Amino acid sequence: MSPVHLKARKGEVASNAVLAGDPGRIRLLSRLLTNPRTVNTNRGFLVVTGERGGVEITLASHGIGGPSAAIVLEELIRLGASNIVRLGTAGGVTANPGEYLVARGAAYLPGGLYEQYLGRLSYPAAADPSLHLALIDEVKKRGLPAREGVVYSSDAFYAENRLDASSLAGLGVAGVEMECGAILVIASIRGARAGCVLMISNKLGGAFLPTRAIGDMALKAGDAVMAALSRLGR
Amino acid sequence: MSPVHLKARKGEVASNAVLAGDPGRIRLLSRLLTNPRTVNTNRGFLVVTGERGGVEITLASHGIGGPSAAIVLEELIRLGASNIVRLGTAGGVTANPGEYLVARGAAYLPGGLYEQYLGRLSYPAAADPSLHLALIDEVKKRGLPAREGVVYSSDAFYAENRLDASSLAGLGVAGVEMECGAILVIASIRGARAGCVLMISNKLGGAFLPTRAIGDMALKAGDAVMAALSRLGR
Amino acid sequence: MSPVHLKARKGEVASNAVLAGDPGRIRLLSRLLTNPRTVNTNRGFLVVTGERGGVEITLASHGIGGPSAAIVLEELIRLGASNIVRLGTAGGVTANPGEYLVARGAAYLPGGLYEQYLGRLSYPAAADPSLHLALIDEVKKRGLPAREGVVYSSDAFYAENRLDASSLAGLGVAGVEMECGAILVIASIRGARAGCVLMISNKLGGAFLPTRAIGDMALKAGDAVMAALSRLGR
Amino acid sequence: MSPVHLKARKGEVASNAVLAGDPGRIRLLSRLLTNPRTVNTNRGFLVVTGERGGVEITLASHGIGGPSAAIVLEELIRLGASNIVRLGTAGGVTANPGEYLVARGAAYLPGGLYEQYLGRLSYPAAADPSLHLALIDEVKKRGLPAREGVVYSSDAFYAENRLDASSLAGLGVAGVEMECGAILVIASIRGARAGCVLMISNKLGGAFLPTRAIGDMALKAGDAVMAALSRLGR
Amino acid sequence: MSPVHLKARKGEVASNAVLAGDPGRIRLLSRLLTNPRTVNTNRGFLVVTGERGGVEITLASHGIGGPSAAIVLEELIRLGASNIVRLGTAGGVTANPGEYLVARGAAYLPGGLYEQYLGRLSYPAAADPSLHLALIDEVKKRGLPAREGVVYSSDAFYAENRLDASSLAGLGVAGVEMECGAILVIASIRGARAGCVLMISNKLGGAFLPTRAIGDMALKAGDAVMAALSRLGR
Amino acid sequence: MSPVHLKARKGEVASNAVLAGDPGRIRLLSRLLTNPRTVNTNRGFLVVTGERGGVEITLASHGIGGPSAAIVLEELIRLGASNIVRLGTAGGVTANPGEYLVARGAAYLPGGLYEQYLGRLSYPAAADPSLHLALIDEVKKRGLPAREGVVYSSDAFYAENRLDASSLAGLGVAGVEMECGAILVIASIRGARAGCVLMISNKLGGAFLPTRAIGDMALKAGDAVMAALSRLGR
Repeated sequence: MSPVHLKARKGEVASNAVLAGDPGRIRLLSRLLTNPRTVNTNRGFLVVTGERGGVEITLASHGIGGPSAAIVLEELIRLGASNIVRLGTAGGVTANPGEYLVARGAAYLPGGLYEQYLGRLSYPAAADPSLHLALIDEVKKRGLPAREGVVYSSDAFYAENRLDASSLAGLGVAGVEMECGAILVIASIRGARAGCVLMISNKLGGAFLPTRAIGDMALKAGDAVMAALSRLGR
Repeated sequence: MSPVHLKARKGEVASNAVLAGDPGRIRLLSRLLTNPRTVNTNRGFLVVTGERGGVEITLASHGIGGPSAAIVLEELIRLGASNIVRLGTAGGVTANPGEYLVARGAAYLPGGLYEQYLGRLSYPAAADPSLHLALIDEVKKRGLPAREGVVYSSDAFYAENRLDASSLAGLGVAGVEMECGAILVIASIRGARAGCVLMISNKLGGAFLPTRAIGDMALKAGDAVMAALSRLGR
Repeated sequence: MSPVHLKARKGEVASNAVLAGDPGRIRLLSRLLTNPRTVNTNRGFLVVTGERGGVEITLASHGIGGPSAAIVLEELIRLGASNIVRLGTAGGVTANPGEYLVARGAAYLPGGLYEQYLGRLSYPAAADPSLHLALIDEVKKRGLPAREGVVYSSDAFYAENRLDASSLAGLGVAGVEMECGAILVIASIRGARAGCVLMISNKLGGAFLPTRAIGDMALKAGDAVMAALSRLGR
Repeated sequence: MSPVHLKARKGEVASNAVLAGDPGRIRLLSRLLTNPRTVNTNRGFLVVTGERGGVEITLASHGIGGPSAAIVLEELIRLGASNIVRLGTAGGVTANPGEYLVARGAAYLPGGLYEQYLGRLSYPAAADPSLHLALIDEVKKRGLPAREGVVYSSDAFYAENRLDASSLAGLGVAGVEMECGAILVIASIRGARAGCVLMISNKLGGAFLPTRAIGDMALKAGDAVMAALSRLGR
Repeated sequence: MSPVHLKARKGEVASNAVLAGDPGRIRLLSRLLTNPRTVNTNRGFLVVTGERGGVEITLASHGIGGPSAAIVLEELIRLGASNIVRLGTAGGVTANPGEYLVARGAAYLPGGLYEQYLGRLSYPAAADPSLHLALIDEVKKRGLPAREGVVYSSDAFYAENRLDASSLAGLGVAGVEMECGAILVIASIRGARAGCVLMISNKLGGAFLPTRAIGDMALKAGDAVMAALSRLGR
Repeated sequence: MSPVHLKARKGEVASNAVLAGDPGRIRLLSRLLTNPRTVNTNRGFLVVTGERGGVEITLASHGIGGPSAAIVLEELIRLGASNIVRLGTAGGVTANPGEYLVARGAAYLPGGLYEQYLGRLSYPAAADPSLHLALIDEVKKRGLPAREGVVYSSDAFYAENRLDASSLAGLGVAGVEMECGAILVIASIRGARAGCVLMISNKLGGAFLPTRAIGDMALKAGDAVMAALSRLGR
């Protein structure tokens, strides 16, 4: 099926892509690009393609939640993306506000989207190893405070009070966010490489860092993410 | 928790609200309002409040999928919305392109968002009876081609080829879309009234009506939905 | 498959039907009918057809639990019933003994009967909106103490001590009973209209109202239910 | 909790009990008793206590389906029953109409009643070994055509067309009925002995033996069952 | 499929077989045999065939856990075994260290192995009634301290701290071990007779009896188990 | 809890460990070690520690299936192992006999072991990225025919005929084996690094390579695996 939601055409999407939930973050990150052109605004998904350090890169907002991110991911892959990083925010379980969490995998509740793709199987939502290590390397090289870990991809922001943070911590879950599970599973099925860099915006259930602080974190991480993507061959 | 994603303030959201996935549809529907003011664009969620026939009404885009729609719904309710109609599109199972489907309920796959809210319970995703009947009445009064039925709220647009349309039809499922399940369940839990009017944009898996045709359908349905909401007391 | 358990013949069952678990309650309610004739006693299911206010109506006992009620419902529909109200008892969660609860929907644990009908889908167990509003209207018109809400349809009367009443209340569950889930799901699949009026006989886990008091409640509700059914066209 | 549905008193229920879904079958089987007295008719559950060969025995109808049978079983146990046989009918998978199936266990779909009693555990629905062997012995001693096997306890008589008979046969399932699963699980939890003798009334989905033929089968089996129960000490 | 893991040939495996997880226990039990010959050591599964009281018997280690035991069981059955007893250890829930538990059935968590064999069905993991009674009889005849009950077959020795012993006790679960569920289910599907005698080695989560004490228990139980097997015809 | 099954002492297990199901394969691989000493044979688990290229390494057999492998893994970690590679065999889905499959992750059916560790979460069974890349590098450096992919960790060798190879292939599953899922999940929870190198012994359901050929593959892979482990710091 050709893309239904993104109106970009083949050739307008680069093989390297950075995704974020919020179109505002995409606008912000586009400052890092040379010659940015907006290739989609349909359905509110902002997609911008430009260059960074001579390498073509596409930035795209995927909205909130696995079902929305899955659509954007599927359509970007159909349009040519093959190395994909989500640069989002997460609530900290063991990770702390202001830190970066490079997620090597995501836990999720089965059912819904996962059951539609996978039937009854529990499939590994895992970062591509090469991309993951490149992300860690570039983040650390810039002296950003970072850790590696597993995230829990929640589907219900306003029902997370039901989550038991100590159980999650006991399983090595460092943070909670909403899209990595779907992105990592679908990229793996489609043969694309994916990774996730998350900015810890708050302790789970606690107060959020100011928007400006998160914006600063995003620009620094964006530089690292784009550098990591550039290191991968197609 | 006060709203995190919508930056509208108390008083800027009306008790009557119309929701759509696409911010473009919200822009279109705002033509039906007198004195429309945009009260949120944060995270790409377009929220506009104005008047129709002397009654205040808020229009809001909820993005794609249950997790996104759940956030917008939770926050609109915290901001004062109590009578809520989703005006979206659906793929037809028994319903046909060009028809309106007023959904009295939604089937969904358990897990994910539902499990976070409900634990193991299967909870009825059902329209508020009074609002539902008012919607049917206003749609029919305008001579619009309409039927009533159950929808299946899918979480995975690009895995719907796994759906067995004849099984769905045997259960009385008239169409497939992506948000009614979450909206109807959460509204019921929060004590708000909700209903759904869907424009059948295509046969499941088949070609879509032109954008313009769906826009025309949306304006007609918007008029009916706003009239129905006006008939409800607070 | 023609009915296996009910030995009534086509023509002996009216389009309007009132169901109760207990054959004793059917006997009681038959006092409200003119010219009652017993059309089935097979398997202990008492089915009586007569007239009320000039409209033909069938009363039927469905036994206890979803599997039993499902059989009686399926066979009544095959025999001609299309507007169906369960008039039963429920334990109160937020509702109080002596009140009537007009259930707009039912929550249930998936598996068993539901999985046999629905596979993995969670399907809305919701009252028909028109019938539901007619029931509320007739109950209120008579000044009966009533509320509207969602019930939980339990399958295990003697394992309900495992239910967490505060969790149920947080989901808007007003009472617990044993058959509405199956009746509302199957009626919807079969294209019949169904609704539920429940007499709160006790607080969940607490002492029951005397049998006589419940009998009085049933006669008053029976009058309201039959009036509501009479208002529906076929 | 003292019994809510059965109005029999302590002392009116024997330690040996024979159960059937249909009150008509209980009436028939009571012909085998000396001095039968009806100790309950409440809720349509017919309970008769008498003697056979000098041993006191109670006959009880449990209605249709696990939830109904579970209530009757729980209440009979509270009233003193401890050795319990269900004498019912089943559709044949590998067993043939006219045969008796002495069920050594029952398969069931998890969820519903089972989840309320057991949480997530799959618990063995198995006949008491001593009672089971005594049943087989008495059935065979009378020259009745019998086999031993596993049954599938369905919750949805009118959705059994979804059952795949060849899959069931591959698991050694000889017949399909509706209550053995609940009875065997709950008896085991409560420390009572239970067994099941089933009359194959039809091939699954096929035509039924005449009522009279099943009645004849029931009287013969009733004699065998009561003899088996008499052989057990308390 | 012919056996892949056991290299014994047809004729080298007796119809009566005793299984244990630990090859050391098989070596120990082989002292009870006349003329023991080792017929497999491949994959570390020790299989020894000999005679006891003139009856041929095979001893086999099945490793730890359902998946391993299932393979050994399937291959032994293909090689001729038809009466099979697991003689293992269990942690006591209600049973006490030093006691024997003759398991009439096993509870298990669905999924994994069970779902591969059974799909969604919960199938009874129950001992063969005749074999079970013979086991109890032989154990008691020797004056060994024994009880009968249900076990829980855990799949995760180091996650059993999550088990709630009081919930298990409330369901009549006397002990916890790791293989009876798979063995009893698969034997039933394959038409073989199976039973389980367990030595309670510790209270769940508590200290273990000395290895020598368990060895003594095993030799006494081995004598009883072999006697019970000898009493069955083929 | 101190190790119950492995009788090795602290200091006798190296931080680098290679695991295989079959003790015979451990014996074979020990040829690659200098100064091998057997540190456990209890329960049939063969554990050998020696040196390779001056680096200490432990070889251990884990038996068959997740529950067995989980015990060995948990105890090895308690005894000091922290970098762990399973070197096993797999049936090929897309991979072919004679190839090596370096598994970056494992899909599994939820329930059983996974539910005991994880509750309802689907947790990523993913290889440690650094170890995984080192494994690929060493395998390729030796010119061994290799591919990277996801495996399905089955729990039921003799029920794999139920697996749908084309569905698995559509999800990018290259092979089927029985332990990677448990090993990768538990290592991640315990903070150890784990990876998996699999020798494709047959096409799923087809004939197996000769034992000798698999032995040759194992020795070559053993050399590569030990080299990869040596490259990791503690």
